Amino acid sequence: MPTEPVLIAGKWRNADTTGVFYSENPSTCEQLPEEYPISSWVDCEAALDAASKAFKELRSIPAGRIADFLERYATLIEERSDALVELAHQETGLPKSPRLADVELPRTTGQLRLAAAAARTGNWRQPIIDSANNIRSCHGAIGPVVVFGPNNFPFAFGSISGGDFAAAIAAGNPVIAKANSSHPGTTKLFAEAAHTAGEETGMPSGMVQLIYRTSHPVGEQLVTDSRTGATGYTGAQNAGLKLKKAADDAGKPIYLELSSLNPVVLLPSVLEEKSNALAEEFTGSCLMGAGQFCTNPGMIIVIESAATNTFIEAVATQFQAATPGTLLSASVEKSLHKSHEILAKAGAELLCGSGRGNGTGYNVANTLLRISGSQFLRDPKTMQTEAFGNSSLIVVAESVDEAESVIAALEGNLTGCIYSSERGDDDEAYDQLAPILRQKTGRFLNDKMPTGVAVSPAMNHGGPYPATGHPSFTAVGIPGALLRFSMLQSYDNVRPNRLPEILMDEYHGPTQRLIDGVWK
Amino acid sequence: MPTEPVLIAGKWRNADTTGVFYSENPSTCEQLPEEYPISSWVDCEAALDAASKAFKELRSIPAGRIADFLERYATLIEERSDALVELAHQETGLPKSPRLADVELPRTTGQLRLAAAAARTGNWRQPIIDSANNIRSCHGAIGPVVVFGPNNFPFAFGSISGGDFAAAIAAGNPVIAKANSSHPGTTKLFAEAAHTAGEETGMPSGMVQLIYRTSHPVGEQLVTDSRTGATGYTGAQNAGLKLKKAADDAGKPIYLELSSLNPVVLLPSVLEEKSNALAEEFTGSCLMGAGQFCTNPGMIIVIESAATNTFIEAVATQFQAATPGTLLSASVEKSLHKSHEILAKAGAELLCGSGRGNGTGYNVANTLLRISGSQFLRDPKTMQTEAFGNSSLIVVAESVDEAESVIAALEGNLTGCIYSSERGDDDEAYDQLAPILRQKTGRFLNDKMPTGVAVSPAMNHGGPYPATGHPSFTAVGIPGALLRFSMLQSYDNVRPNRLPEILMDEYHGPTQRLIDGVWK
Repeated sequence: MPTEPVLIAGKWRNADTTGVFYSENPSTCEQLPEEYPISSWVDCEAALDAASKAFKELRSIPAGRIADFLERYATLIEERSDALVELAHQETGLPKSPRLADVELPRTTGQLRLAAAAARTGNWRQPIIDSANNIRSCHGAIGPVVVFGPNNFPFAFGSISGGDFAAAIAAGNPVIAKANSSHPGTTKLFAEAAHTAGEETGMPSGMVQLIYRTSHPVGEQLVTDSRTGATGYTGAQNAGLKLKKAADDAGKPIYLELSSLNPVVLLPSVLEEKSNALAEEFTGSCLMGAGQFCTNPGMIIVIESAATNTFIEAVATQFQAATPGTLLSASVEKSLHKSHEILAKAGAELLCGSGRGNGTGYNVANTLLRISGSQFLRDPKTMQTEAFGNSSLIVVAESVDEAESVIAALEGNLTGCIYSSERGDDDEAYDQLAPILRQKTGRFLNDKMPTGVAVSPAMNHGGPYPATGHPSFTAVGIPGALLRFSMLQSYDNVRPNRLPEILMDEYHGPTQRLIDGVWK
Repeated sequence: MPTEPVLIAGKWRNADTTGVFYSENPSTCEQLPEEYPISSWVDCEAALDAASKAFKELRSIPAGRIADFLERYATLIEERSDALVELAHQETGLPKSPRLADVELPRTTGQLRLAAAAARTGNWRQPIIDSANNIRSCHGAIGPVVVFGPNNFPFAFGSISGGDFAAAIAAGNPVIAKANSSHPGTTKLFAEAAHTAGEETGMPSGMVQLIYRTSHPVGEQLVTDSRTGATGYTGAQNAGLKLKKAADDAGKPIYLELSSLNPVVLLPSVLEEKSNALAEEFTGSCLMGAGQFCTNPGMIIVIESAATNTFIEAVATQFQAATPGTLLSASVEKSLHKSHEILAKAGAELLCGSGRGNGTGYNVANTLLRISGSQFLRDPKTMQTEAFGNSSLIVVAESVDEAESVIAALEGNLTGCIYSSERGDDDEAYDQLAPILRQKTGRFLNDKMPTGVAVSPAMNHGGPYPATGHPSFTAVGIPGALLRFSMLQSYDNVRPNRLPEILMDEYHGPTQRLIDGVWK
């Protein structure tokens, strides 16, 4: 079987390779037949040149036409949904229904259409006009964006179909997509649809490009190249930090989503009121999709009590009773085992799980670990080792004060949640803990597990490092997500006919503008 | 004379020192008598603790009271303006009038009052409410901010009086100010006023703190400490990049303003129409304040022609005729000489200046250098060596195409400008060059020198690296500048009475809110 071609400068062509790789079906642990190229710098160089050319051409293409492209692409995805779902299921082990077909695919096309709408209205650009000084500003496209997608959402976070892709394109940038190595075939199907949509709607040929994989040094060169505008990366912390370092040194914006424990605090009275219901709610959230969500609740913080013990026992029973889900790959299984070892070595007590599970393909028994607050505080860094998958660590503090110290020792997270009694008995503890947890998280919740991430303009799928690389930006939520792939551009004394249309005095378009302090 | 005390946790106290330093009067080249401490980590540790405590206390202080503080502080500055102007003149050599007394001081108090108004309205927080999903978001304070101020604006960019200070405080953060070593006395006078204003308006004692200087490693420790929320730095590239690297590695936001050549392109027809007027305009802008502005036009790009030669000769004549201004310090003089050496060694032709000038105190003869476009393109990196001061490099391209290559090889800048004929003869060249220069700059100008930086909501005093560390943020312009010292905070299903007031359904405050897609 010939090596799959890459999509560069509008053509499917043979890659310049330094090697090949294959994906696996994690449900059968068998290698899939297609051979994918590991691209050398030659491919990246060609893609960067084409993307630069496309970025130049995009200057004269109105945002409405970019929106046409995104919408046409969404339709073509829907037309190919059966093939996408089938192949993604093979490559990721994620269930076809409801997960892939009924949840992730509609979310993906919905995101593309929301991004199209955002491109059309232009509100994300936040135009400001100061008439007295004749200074005007707005956000504008930053240049070619490199997108590295994660393994856990082959559609909705896919490098050529997901949130970063939609945001970067809607903001007016070409995208160079780097497929996730665990689902290259799915990414290829998307690239074919995007390519067709681009041709049908007259997009520049370098608007959407696909390479499958590079070595780490070539990846670093890609994100730091002078032609690159910015990078979006969602994935493992280790590889992400290498790219971050390279981009930081070169002064290139990089938006990363790296890891998150998503701590959930269960306060004493609410635990006493409904420890079994909470155990069920938590188990459902933690084991859903084999726990392979960025917002999976990987840490529970509770205060020592009889109700706490009831809760923990109930969770352990449910964890043991549930069949573990299939993990995305051999390396996810391996990493999960490794994280369990690190946590156990640092003193965490294994309540259940940890070994090979009785599920299908790659899987690990549903795992629950326990540690006391004081033990946690002895080495908070190690105790925050992410165990990506169907696993959670319960931190049992001896008092609310100790829980406060635990929360104060947390690193940045995407989410943080506090459950409290509705009768008011937990309010004092809530008031003590909430401000500290609030500051450590991008999205702060009450009485709700963090797993669901609504595509809302008020969503923050972001948070302080190391959850992401910058706490001011969100990866989900439109139009906010577009801002990552833009720069602030001010126009001082620029002649009226040379201004971008949304900054002209005479303007009849749809964009809300802040003119001399008032939104119009 | 005893070593000056530092301001930590609301008290003027003896520093824990690793050494001492003195400032100099650059007009006389004589050392001033006051002795200032170089603080050890012990002082930083104490300041961080006090700032953390202040940040906690700030949670229950309404934004209106922070505004009261900023306004009271502005008034106290005005009451002490004579002493401030006198000492700043001694420490910086900048003229008392109009510069310090009539321009920079009113700008500084104006900024503080604008920041107060921004804190009061709260519009900078950009509250978004999604009723259907019950998700709400806004920007919120990020935590203690460390501010490093530059040497060139002792008031308006001063670490305890300038734009970063005003923005960080208005966003609800305590500030640890690190004085610029060239004007420690001026900084102390500001700190005294800020301290008094804080006491009068009931601010937490660790809200505003001052240390004078640290070693580089201690400074790096300060910006990466877990208690630090973010850092603002304006100053020399070398020291700034060390702090950037430390902050990046720790995942801490740092906003830097490092260097900028502020290229000005003069197109052929406008040069032909008025080469002498342009020579005068440029000379005025370039030599003002001895060229020690972040937005000083340090590079002129022209196309070879007779008019170009006339322009260059006129500038050289005016440069030679003007008395060079006093430079801020011995090290500014030394750096300027060094930059000239680097540029000359790389092939730049010296048209005038470069040696010791006939001005007062530290000064360098007004310097004009020239290089051809093709020579520039041989080593664009070296040719972009910043020569901070009364100096500029003229790049003479042989054609518009070569000018395009020169612009394409530029690094990021705060500003970029194109002058063109009003008769339309330069329009083709403008259309070719403007989009490329636009992408390299934060603020893009027409027909106007970049030196003036209006405090406007549409201002972008920012730009791509290495002008700053992130192209999405501005250091001047309120409310935009506040966003740097904030994080995005989302509230998901949080009970109504626990929401920040600006996110509650029942709200009668002044903040404009985006509710279900409409600004209200």
